[in-house]
Amino acid sequence: MRQGKLFVISGPSGAGKGTICNELIKTGNFALSVSMTTRTPRTGEIPGKSYFFVTEEEFVRTIEEGGFLEHAQIYGNRYGTPKGPVLRQLAEGRDVILEIEMQGALSVKRSYPDAVLIFILPPSLAVLRQRLAGRGTETEEEIEKRSSQCLSEIRMINDYDYYVVNDVLSDAVADALAIVRAEQLSTGAGCDELIRKYEEE
Amino acid sequence: MRQGKLFVISGPSGAGKGTICNELIKTGNFALSVSMTTRTPRTGEIPGKSYFFVTEEEFVRTIEEGGFLEHAQIYGNRYGTPKGPVLRQLAEGRDVILEIEMQGALSVKRSYPDAVLIFILPPSLAVLRQRLAGRGTETEEEIEKRSSQCLSEIRMINDYDYYVVNDVLSDAVADALAIVRAEQLSTGAGCDELIRKYEEE
Repeated sequence: MRQGKLFVISGPSGAGKGTICNELIKTGNFALSVSMTTRTPRTGEIPGKSYFFVTEEEFVRTIEEGGFLEHAQIYGNRYGTPKGPVLRQLAEGRDVILEIEMQGALSVKRSYPDAVLIFILPPSLAVLRQRLAGRGTETEEEIEKRSSQCLSEIRMINDYDYYVVNDVLSDAVADALAIVRAEQLSTGAGCDELIRKYEEE
Repeated sequence: MRQGKLFVISGPSGAGKGTICNELIKTGNFALSVSMTTRTPRTGEIPGKSYFFVTEEEFVRTIEEGGFLEHAQIYGNRYGTPKGPVLRQLAEGRDVILEIEMQGALSVKRSYPDAVLIFILPPSLAVLRQRLAGRGTETEEEIEKRSSQCLSEIRMINDYDYYVVNDVLSDAVADALAIVRAEQLSTGAGCDELIRKYEEE
């Protein structure tokens, strides 16, 4: 069976990677990955669906066993993408989509080099600042910091496989879907089965 | 300026590469390449538009100068894709599309490794035979020969970058366009200009 592909949607905060990711998920063509975390469940969160909620010890053991595609610590809580379930979905021929920040995306590529990294860009730094200001959750100082962080991330664009400029959302989603389709049509190991199909006629 | 991409549409006779290629050209997003040939112009053919009509001596000189991306001899006439005009279009940032049979496609990849090779497949060998029979121009023997030739070509699918199964034409065209778009969005040398754009803000 054709192996699924792992797509990692990443990019600077405010570029809209979350929104694009949600639109891709809505197509129903992707398997989702559930993250593992040490933080306490919030009201309404379902264990095993929202997150796998684990203790610090379990999390550290998973790290030691090489059980994460990537993991990070944010405000004292740990978050990670468990490797096993993702690899299982891929083996079953399902494409998996992950939304992670840049460092995590590069970690995934290191532990799973076949991952396809898509970098979501704002149309300009001015628009990025505008979008962040529109959220109303960041101070002016934070916005400036994110804008210059965005520039350093853009300079590393060649660590990614593709980039999508998120100006008009529907265009950006179409671009991301074109990338997904092209990757499904790329030749390689998966073609053995295709060749056999014609041979068996 | 962003360098254009060279797309080579190839595949077995009867798979529909010509039809798909025409549909892609209709989008108006590709520069065309004019072939060089030693055969005499037919009524209505425009020199420099239909073909560059040249003498045997001029053709051979072009070969010796390494002036072809690929060339072949068919029924005593020579045909070739001149390198110069294609490279010029690419340098000007235009994407170029070529439709060639398999050997020619692989030659193009050798002389221009950045070329993107797309293999057009029939949905099955049975459908291929049916399509060839429908044309009414091939004998049963020729159809069988083309069918087994198709199978040998499919076995070399990994020499290509992508494959498209031409079952429903509109789907096949959409797949080809997804590949083109994804290639335009792939990172690499062309991203230097993109990075500069953000730096200059």
